[in-house]
Amino acid sequence: MKQNADYKTIGIIGGMGPLATCDFFEKIIRMTEASTDREHIPILIDCNPRIPDRVKAILYGGDDPVPEILKSGRRLIDAGAEILLMGCNTAYYFYERVAGELTAPLINMPYETAMGARRAGLKKVGLLATDGTVLSGVYAKELEKAGVEQVLPDEAGQRSVMDMIYNGIKAGNSDIDPSGFIETVNKMMASGAEAVILGCTELPIAFHLYKINAPFLDPAVFAAEAAVTMAGGKVRKLNESSYESHVGGIR
Amino acid sequence: MKQNADYKTIGIIGGMGPLATCDFFEKIIRMTEASTDREHIPILIDCNPRIPDRVKAILYGGDDPVPEILKSGRRLIDAGAEILLMGCNTAYYFYERVAGELTAPLINMPYETAMGARRAGLKKVGLLATDGTVLSGVYAKELEKAGVEQVLPDEAGQRSVMDMIYNGIKAGNSDIDPSGFIETVNKMMASGAEAVILGCTELPIAFHLYKINAPFLDPAVFAAEAAVTMAGGKVRKLNESSYESHVGGIR
Repeated sequence: MKQNADYKTIGIIGGMGPLATCDFFEKIIRMTEASTDREHIPILIDCNPRIPDRVKAILYGGDDPVPEILKSGRRLIDAGAEILLMGCNTAYYFYERVAGELTAPLINMPYETAMGARRAGLKKVGLLATDGTVLSGVYAKELEKAGVEQVLPDEAGQRSVMDMIYNGIKAGNSDIDPSGFIETVNKMMASGAEAVILGCTELPIAFHLYKINAPFLDPAVFAAEAAVTMAGGKVRKLNESSYESHVGGIR
Repeated sequence: MKQNADYKTIGIIGGMGPLATCDFFEKIIRMTEASTDREHIPILIDCNPRIPDRVKAILYGGDDPVPEILKSGRRLIDAGAEILLMGCNTAYYFYERVAGELTAPLINMPYETAMGARRAGLKKVGLLATDGTVLSGVYAKELEKAGVEQVLPDEAGQRSVMDMIYNGIKAGNSDIDPSGFIETVNKMMASGAEAVILGCTELPIAFHLYKINAPFLDPAVFAAEAAVTMAGGKVRKLNESSYESHVGGIR
């Protein structure tokens, strides 16, 4: 078994949002082949709530998040991080600007997900994501390169996704009515999608919470896999029948 | 609502074990009163699997964990942490040595828990913890000062606790037979304990996983409460009926 001295350190630029950062962290740990504490990969996290809202920046001229994202990235590198990840799908709109300024490699989550969809033999996938991620086309671009067709929700469906993300999970409100969101997922599957991309890091939490059964691709799982591999670790097979069942989906 | 610029940064010395660090992180986030990403408290995490096993160090002359703990603490302070926490009960055996060397205050989890037991009016509590935590008396000392009696498992019971921690949760093995562990909890309650202290950060995960119903005190909850308060945040009431029910216990 590999010891941690052999591993590179993973750095997570987090706080977009905090719970999603936590979910990402958990995925990296559970996906690492290790049977004692010491066999795990060193991970540094900067959960930085000072990063401005990505959707507002892309769609409504809000504050540019890049300067704060770079501050987090540099703090992580200074502390020893050698591989970086951003725990937010919408933030990948700024991928080139961020990666170009940092001295450690930055994993590209939409790219890893699109490649995962292709490896799984999927031809058509639905995208559940924020308005910012949908309209900026970060997934469309990568899916197209991978030869996978993208299906989007209709207008009301997209509103139900935003509602679940902002008024449900980000607000820490578990009493929200999930029926509109569930209907949106079902409609996409009925229109030919073979799986849905949970293209906002809050959505795996929603799928777990409301026990939604549609086949899904979790970008955080693909990004975590890439991180574990790049750090020199061995990716562990998850136990789909147990408490790890929400950490999974198609791989 | 407070904005994050007003908060102090919390630093978590983690990796003892990694999943417990993640659980701690989640508790701090869920226990912070915030309805958008930007209202959360900045958190830095150093998940450092290079820290030697605490139980081995205390009981069997294993490598001293303090130098690596201090490295993590200093990395966090250099990156901006202003309040520190260790995500491991056994590590509090080394509290004075660690706190004495670091320039940011280090929260004392056993102290916060003992004070919490007293506030809740408890007279007698069971302690579920590693051999290292039990034998080093970190909880016994704080409980005595708080005027709360400590009940320990019998020898076989203590072995079942160690088995759950090391061969169950730390090993990522959810197929372990929990019956010996559950019986140990039931025996302590039958012998007059009014609640059990989950005195190893892996145990809240076990209680959640095996749906164990005994009243419990989760030291991570008390320490997270102290951290949120010291950072200038407002502690949020958890929703006991929902997905947050495992983040709770007596408070």
